[in-house]
Amino acid sequence: MSVTAPAGFVAAGAAVGIKPTGHPDLALVATASGRAVEAAAVFTANRSAAAPVEISRAHLETTGGRAAGVLLTSGNANAATGDAGRAAAAELCALAASGIGVPTEEVLICQTGLIGVPFPIATVRPTVGGVVRTLAGGADAARAAATAIMTTDTARKEVLVDGGGFLVGGMAKGAAMLAPDMATMLAVLTTDAGCEAGLLRRLLAEAVGETFNRLSVDGCTSTNDTVIVLASGARPAVPPAALGRSLAEACRSLAEQMAEDAEGATKVVRFGVVGARSDDEAHRAARKVADSLLVKCSLNGEDPYWGRVVSEVASAGVGFELDRVAVAYGGVEVCGHGEAVEHDEAAVARHLAGRHLELTVDLGLGTGRAVVLGTDLGYGYIDENRTTS
Amino acid sequence: MSVTAPAGFVAAGAAVGIKPTGHPDLALVATASGRAVEAAAVFTANRSAAAPVEISRAHLETTGGRAAGVLLTSGNANAATGDAGRAAAAELCALAASGIGVPTEEVLICQTGLIGVPFPIATVRPTVGGVVRTLAGGADAARAAATAIMTTDTARKEVLVDGGGFLVGGMAKGAAMLAPDMATMLAVLTTDAGCEAGLLRRLLAEAVGETFNRLSVDGCTSTNDTVIVLASGARPAVPPAALGRSLAEACRSLAEQMAEDAEGATKVVRFGVVGARSDDEAHRAARKVADSLLVKCSLNGEDPYWGRVVSEVASAGVGFELDRVAVAYGGVEVCGHGEAVEHDEAAVARHLAGRHLELTVDLGLGTGRAVVLGTDLGYGYIDENRTTS
Repeated sequence: MSVTAPAGFVAAGAAVGIKPTGHPDLALVATASGRAVEAAAVFTANRSAAAPVEISRAHLETTGGRAAGVLLTSGNANAATGDAGRAAAAELCALAASGIGVPTEEVLICQTGLIGVPFPIATVRPTVGGVVRTLAGGADAARAAATAIMTTDTARKEVLVDGGGFLVGGMAKGAAMLAPDMATMLAVLTTDAGCEAGLLRRLLAEAVGETFNRLSVDGCTSTNDTVIVLASGARPAVPPAALGRSLAEACRSLAEQMAEDAEGATKVVRFGVVGARSDDEAHRAARKVADSLLVKCSLNGEDPYWGRVVSEVASAGVGFELDRVAVAYGGVEVCGHGEAVEHDEAAVARHLAGRHLELTVDLGLGTGRAVVLGTDLGYGYIDENRTTS
Repeated sequence: MSVTAPAGFVAAGAAVGIKPTGHPDLALVATASGRAVEAAAVFTANRSAAAPVEISRAHLETTGGRAAGVLLTSGNANAATGDAGRAAAAELCALAASGIGVPTEEVLICQTGLIGVPFPIATVRPTVGGVVRTLAGGADAARAAATAIMTTDTARKEVLVDGGGFLVGGMAKGAAMLAPDMATMLAVLTTDAGCEAGLLRRLLAEAVGETFNRLSVDGCTSTNDTVIVLASGARPAVPPAALGRSLAEACRSLAEQMAEDAEGATKVVRFGVVGARSDDEAHRAARKVADSLLVKCSLNGEDPYWGRVVSEVASAGVGFELDRVAVAYGGVEVCGHGEAVEHDEAAVARHLAGRHLELTVDLGLGTGRAVVLGTDLGYGYIDENRTTS
């Protein structure tokens, strides 16, 4: 159970012909009542925002933060597709809205796949109404929706958080072009908690900031990134702090599922920085290390070459004094005061041989701290991304 | 002929036991007269500058921009090596200076290799005087020096520019950890042109800015990057502009040689951006594209997936309006006004099948332009960087 678990939501997924493989490629998440509820979203910071991002942003502005459903497609990003792309995204919303029986502006849209390829609206147009009619509650419907948003993902990404008196469910896709602001990812969250749209937007932004925006597989920020939350209000009296914690927990789980499924990765790595002058500087330093090709190659080879880690932090543009720096793998310090230190090499080798790694840099300057979730770099990433055909 | 070609310079190279392989690992470039001449340098922007960078910077400050020689070692970067590393770098300068017969401050030092490994000064100490005694003019000596600074380089990197009445010679190393400010690279240039140290510093900084700092193999900025020029003054009446042009030409050739020898690369790519609001924005956009893992993978696969190029430029933090953007491979426009355009696909495929590629983005906003020299990303880069052993 995921997006359909919180009271008041239904979902559907189907194959409508966007993907040449014939795999499922259209999903819907909607309110069971067919009426709009409070909604909020966070969109990509990429200036080449795709048509669905433009349309969803405009719809949320028009409604003041309400939506009855979200339509999602995979296999074509509908990005860099000009006026025809915008028209296609708007038409998809209109078709779903007509099926549900609400105004077009109450349907939001997310799309993912290849950039710059005209969206095959003629193929999809006749199918949307039929998918709307399959909207249902239950785990199967949620699973069908989560399946239909996968692209290079090898596993469905679903989550359910019990907030104590309310639920947060979610689904997501994302395996590469993954970097904060935001990862190439789509996520739809549902909750039965009641929450006014403005507050919901703030809680979602905070949750995204500490989860999806702390994930980097390749430092690439996509054109289509979107996280949407719908709040049905079936459980009206939920404290905002409790809802915020549960939203963050759901986002964290989905982000971790993306890291686990990252293209070509053999390691999932928590890149931690502590002792920075500020949390922001810690975050910048951690991202610099997480995105370093040389560090990622070392981790792929299970080589504790901390010299590259120090070099990256020292070129991250943050406060840095070499003789205060320490580096640890799996809690074993290999560099202290900016120099090699005697350590248990077998313990480090055992840690690096695992799948889940911890690499921590202590800058020794303050109390700022951050963790960025990332991966190593292996042949598989190149294989996956050499060609689109 | 390279560093020994301009009148007044000698060189040497030898194997002194830093590299476990026994390959040459110590080089010297010095004035034939044994007296200091005008000198200038550009150093890494990395805040974890290695011991040799600290020592060379201090020496140049003490002398006000004069040097009689440069000692270079390969196989150990002497970076993140603490007080012992600084003492080792200072001692190497003192040993070379003693052999040449000048004050310690008149010798500069460059080192390259592994970071964080204590420098084996006890091994090298007894050998420096002997290498000084082999200093000689001619092509063989220059070649020996250029060979002794190689690490993962597969080819020596030498250059000779005839400025018309004066010469600029140079040698360099660099194959990865290559990104501006500066590439992981060392370069020593010599010229027989006369030039006062302050002016020489400005001319060198300009030459480096438009050559080495426009090169990116992996976006990693190293701890040891150094470019040094020595001007013997044997040809006193050289116009500064002519010297600046020749220095830039020498640096450009060495930078191109580094790109040709980049670890694991199968393509050398000129990433051009035109139509930016400023040259600086063009440079930032070109670097974002050149450092993109996804773009580099596409080029490795000879796939003209321009959507990724647009996405990267749009997240580079520069002025961007999608409907003004054009992208071309080898001069063939594949995207115009932010959308796919009909084009000669066979011509693009032929271009991408070659080794030297041109990828140009026109932002359509102004007159700013820049070119960054980069590479694709292949298995070889991972192989080279998985382990240091």
